[in-house]
Amino acid sequence: MQQQKINNKVDVNLTHNNLQTYLKDKKEIVNKFLENYFNTKFSPQVLHESMIYSLFAGGKRLRPILCLAGYQICKTDSQNILPQACAIELIHTFSLIHDDLPAIDNDDLRRGKLSNHKKFGQAIAILSGDSLLIEAYEMFLQNDELLAPQVLIKALKELTNAIGTKGLAAGETMDIICEGKETDEKTLEFIHYHKTAKFIQAAVKIGGILADADSKTLNALECYGKNLGLAFQIIDDILDITQTTEQLGKPQGSDVAKKKMTYPALMGLEKSKEKAVAHIKKATTALEFLGEKAFWLNQIANYVLTRIN
Amino acid sequence: MQQQKINNKVDVNLTHNNLQTYLKDKKEIVNKFLENYFNTKFSPQVLHESMIYSLFAGGKRLRPILCLAGYQICKTDSQNILPQACAIELIHTFSLIHDDLPAIDNDDLRRGKLSNHKKFGQAIAILSGDSLLIEAYEMFLQNDELLAPQVLIKALKELTNAIGTKGLAAGETMDIICEGKETDEKTLEFIHYHKTAKFIQAAVKIGGILADADSKTLNALECYGKNLGLAFQIIDDILDITQTTEQLGKPQGSDVAKKKMTYPALMGLEKSKEKAVAHIKKATTALEFLGEKAFWLNQIANYVLTRIN
Repeated sequence: MQQQKINNKVDVNLTHNNLQTYLKDKKEIVNKFLENYFNTKFSPQVLHESMIYSLFAGGKRLRPILCLAGYQICKTDSQNILPQACAIELIHTFSLIHDDLPAIDNDDLRRGKLSNHKKFGQAIAILSGDSLLIEAYEMFLQNDELLAPQVLIKALKELTNAIGTKGLAAGETMDIICEGKETDEKTLEFIHYHKTAKFIQAAVKIGGILADADSKTLNALECYGKNLGLAFQIIDDILDITQTTEQLGKPQGSDVAKKKMTYPALMGLEKSKEKAVAHIKKATTALEFLGEKAFWLNQIANYVLTRIN
Repeated sequence: MQQQKINNKVDVNLTHNNLQTYLKDKKEIVNKFLENYFNTKFSPQVLHESMIYSLFAGGKRLRPILCLAGYQICKTDSQNILPQACAIELIHTFSLIHDDLPAIDNDDLRRGKLSNHKKFGQAIAILSGDSLLIEAYEMFLQNDELLAPQVLIKALKELTNAIGTKGLAAGETMDIICEGKETDEKTLEFIHYHKTAKFIQAAVKIGGILADADSKTLNALECYGKNLGLAFQIIDDILDITQTTEQLGKPQGSDVAKKKMTYPALMGLEKSKEKAVAHIKKATTALEFLGEKAFWLNQIANYVLTRIN
């Protein structure tokens, strides 16, 4: 019911068409920037090949799009922050490559293709993951003459804080050490927030920071990003059960097979869906004062939710 | 003969005593900063434990000391750049943890202790390596109010450039793919420069950048750092053959066992020593115009060379 209320805000079909175009356009802009960036080959060739193999394996580019959309709340010249927005995708790719490694999640498939280590071997997968993480900083520091240096440093701090021991790496570690163990909701929330939500939160907030948004807007973007990220992870867990291997691009039910704690396992499918809906509601509510400026961010929030339907 | 000429510049014994005190003092300052930084525990505990296990496994702290010494060419308040100097050690530790992994160098021992993955398992070793790399950026961005933001960004670019696809990661990848293969001197130089020298070069140059040194001084630091780094790696290869397992803290002859190409394997011990001496000569010559200001950097260069005696 809550979900219906959200969707009813706008004509679903019209929005969906428009949003699909919006997402397609932004994805193309991101891909073009990335393709251009990695057009220059370097030695050793296999490192370059391995990095671009995973980077161009067909991601949705959600995080850079969120960064661009966060920026566009305040400013229009979002092409100026393409290096920073796209750097976020490099970090996302790094995290996927390392997560798939045999010692961690041991996934042979990613987005319907062989995972990086199945294609290139573990040594190259470890090193190309490392290299994508480092290259993200290289990319983030590009075009710095277009931004105030203080602003760039503030954005870099936000990014770094979201992916290390206060974010992604801590969440991933907790996820591993909890595998096969009885986990309570508090621990599951720790994992979801650190592993997924904090990085999505940072992506959209970095857009705001780079646009020099005021603190009220930054707080709203933070709340939006956090709740969007939490909903995103719950829905990912739901899809792991309800979709086919073909739809997922990786084996269906792999969370269950790995004895990973998930919301559906903890509270069932229906309650998990309700929780995702509630997070999306919180996300869009946080942006209400921004009115039409938050149009695309609201659309993206509703889109994330439609994946469970 | 060339080596003797270098050592004859100053009274060897006196210098050695002074340098030992200098290195000991600086090492203590670095260790104190790092201990204080990692005093705050975080969740999950095993990630914290794994990171500090390798970070405090007894390194010489050569790279942060070089950074501080590079800074002291121009300025005296080097305590202001401790976050940046110490961040370099975190990156060094990250690279050692990942290098030791079974898929890469498969080393069970590091500095006489179990390597990280032997102690904590591969998953934690991969993630604590990643975390140290990310935490290095977190640390590097600390105390930024004491530095001009443009200067901090310039230093960050230097650091990042030295450790990714134009540096450390490229060198490490080439090292792996050349294992067991016939390698020419050009390829060996590529490996040594990218894997070792460029990061040492960056460490000392970052000191100069943070001190806002002029371009003549920065070029000199770059030349010094590059040649010091190349000599350092040649000497490392020599020690792998000439020292005992106990002295090395890892199995003696491990390069040979892994069929790694090294200078001693390519041109013999004597010619390798001569090459190291020539690099140290180049390093110290680059600093000549700095006179007494380069005293400690010259001392460190000579110290690196004494390791083969």
